[in-house]
Amino acid sequence: MKKAIRKKDIDLMVYDFDGVLTDNKVLVFEDGKEAVVCNRSDGLAIRKMRENKIQQIFLSAEKSGIVAVRAKKLKIKAIHNVRDKKTTLIAYCKEKKYDLKKVLYVGNDSNDREAMKIVGYPVAPRDAHKSIKEVAKFIINVDGGQGVIRALYDRIILK
Amino acid sequence: MKKAIRKKDIDLMVYDFDGVLTDNKVLVFEDGKEAVVCNRSDGLAIRKMRENKIQQIFLSAEKSGIVAVRAKKLKIKAIHNVRDKKTTLIAYCKEKKYDLKKVLYVGNDSNDREAMKIVGYPVAPRDAHKSIKEVAKFIINVDGGQGVIRALYDRIILK
Amino acid sequence: MKKAIRKKDIDLMVYDFDGVLTDNKVLVFEDGKEAVVCNRSDGLAIRKMRENKIQQIFLSAEKSGIVAVRAKKLKIKAIHNVRDKKTTLIAYCKEKKYDLKKVLYVGNDSNDREAMKIVGYPVAPRDAHKSIKEVAKFIINVDGGQGVIRALYDRIILK
Amino acid sequence: MKKAIRKKDIDLMVYDFDGVLTDNKVLVFEDGKEAVVCNRSDGLAIRKMRENKIQQIFLSAEKSGIVAVRAKKLKIKAIHNVRDKKTTLIAYCKEKKYDLKKVLYVGNDSNDREAMKIVGYPVAPRDAHKSIKEVAKFIINVDGGQGVIRALYDRIILK
Repeated sequence: MKKAIRKKDIDLMVYDFDGVLTDNKVLVFEDGKEAVVCNRSDGLAIRKMRENKIQQIFLSAEKSGIVAVRAKKLKIKAIHNVRDKKTTLIAYCKEKKYDLKKVLYVGNDSNDREAMKIVGYPVAPRDAHKSIKEVAKFIINVDGGQGVIRALYDRIILK
Repeated sequence: MKKAIRKKDIDLMVYDFDGVLTDNKVLVFEDGKEAVVCNRSDGLAIRKMRENKIQQIFLSAEKSGIVAVRAKKLKIKAIHNVRDKKTTLIAYCKEKKYDLKKVLYVGNDSNDREAMKIVGYPVAPRDAHKSIKEVAKFIINVDGGQGVIRALYDRIILK
Repeated sequence: MKKAIRKKDIDLMVYDFDGVLTDNKVLVFEDGKEAVVCNRSDGLAIRKMRENKIQQIFLSAEKSGIVAVRAKKLKIKAIHNVRDKKTTLIAYCKEKKYDLKKVLYVGNDSNDREAMKIVGYPVAPRDAHKSIKEVAKFIINVDGGQGVIRALYDRIILK
Repeated sequence: MKKAIRKKDIDLMVYDFDGVLTDNKVLVFEDGKEAVVCNRSDGLAIRKMRENKIQQIFLSAEKSGIVAVRAKKLKIKAIHNVRDKKTTLIAYCKEKKYDLKKVLYVGNDSNDREAMKIVGYPVAPRDAHKSIKEVAKFIINVDGGQGVIRALYDRIILK
């Protein structure tokens, strides 16, 4: 198991949204509106990484536009309503000339599994599904929505 | 106590909504609007079962239309505002020619008890009321709203 | 410490709202709107007590109309925006000819203390403030908002 | 480590908002609206301190106007959208003639650190970031949003 994550070894940080930036819950209203609960500490960490010129995107299967709203506030890119995350990620990295071996991917459930298997830095929150923990090389000791990205940021060696 | 749940032994999965798909909480606004908190992991599991041709319905005593909204998003049927769940379930299974012995029912509180006593697979979340745990043949080791259906799906033998 | 609560010994059940029916949290929106989280299991218990002809009211210091909305749905009375709960309770019981010794009062924080000292059945949730637990004769082994009234209902001897 | 906090030694109480008055979470809607979860017990404590003529302000980095809404309800001042809390706090105290040695500051994450280093009473909730706990002279044994100010109030010697 790899231990250190150095900024210079990372081309791109990819975050699944639900279950990573959130506790995987969704608030459902009678009119079909939805809301999710994010963590300000992740917002702070994402901003710090952006200031350190680390590329970051959200990659989500959800139809809901909440991920785009959150990405806009945190000034990073979001790709949502994705059926096949692995294929989408390969295409995105090819376009941007990112090396998959230098991609860090934080995922929590089975639809992240194939994408996580092709990147150099597959990361899981503490409460990820067991099928995900099997393929993760890094486990963050924090549950989804409780500051996973904040804790990840503390582990990145910036110099 | 039965241990295995085989897809071929199940005609229908019935889910009480509040306390099973949710933590039994309800968000109440000043104008009377309500919202509940669901779990994306249950959504993923319900979709997987649907793709495996397993029939699923929500059966709820609640007047609120939230259960219908959630059912629509997950593309399953919802029967809500039900006063007598046992009678409603018998009628539904008769119409659909489902065998009650092949019905799985996940419930959490006393208004599920009579319906659970007539089905072959009565299931309770870990935090169900004690009167429900008494009649359940399966206890899912997860609290309501924390991914009960996701954990149930992991226990179903699909072949 | 009294242990049994018999229906025939109770004229009135009084529930503080925030911290008893809720976890004492309030959702705050940018436009000043508020929402709170209630528990369906308390709703079920209040309905059962109503069907058993047990009188119940909410008594709340809060300005917000949420308590009235919740009371309406559960078909009980609410008195809110109350500055002095003790005085209000005395006046209400005098008007309704309820004996304070036969009043059960569930409260959680210091503004419930004086009212709880004059009733026969002062009750506190597990996570009430210590100044309240000092005057409570009954502690419900459940935190506010987690089904305090549901657990209380299980302790009432109906016959 | 100082233990007693006497009212007469305090010119001003400064509360970071997110992570102190809240659990640092934010509810995010599809239209970009946000909401946060506050605690009624903190509201009660802030009112009691106001009645005891203790000056209190919220000091927040957040753009969102929620902090102003909450401050208005609790009848205290809020300064939000603050980039550099230390500089803002110095200017505010100079204008109001408050002695920084008599300022109590409750903060939870790295953007509070510099401001906390210049005040006489730096306070952290139990779940504050480790970089904050390093500079705090007082740790409140309660997590952010769970009644930090209510617990702090219990520690203040009013006479």
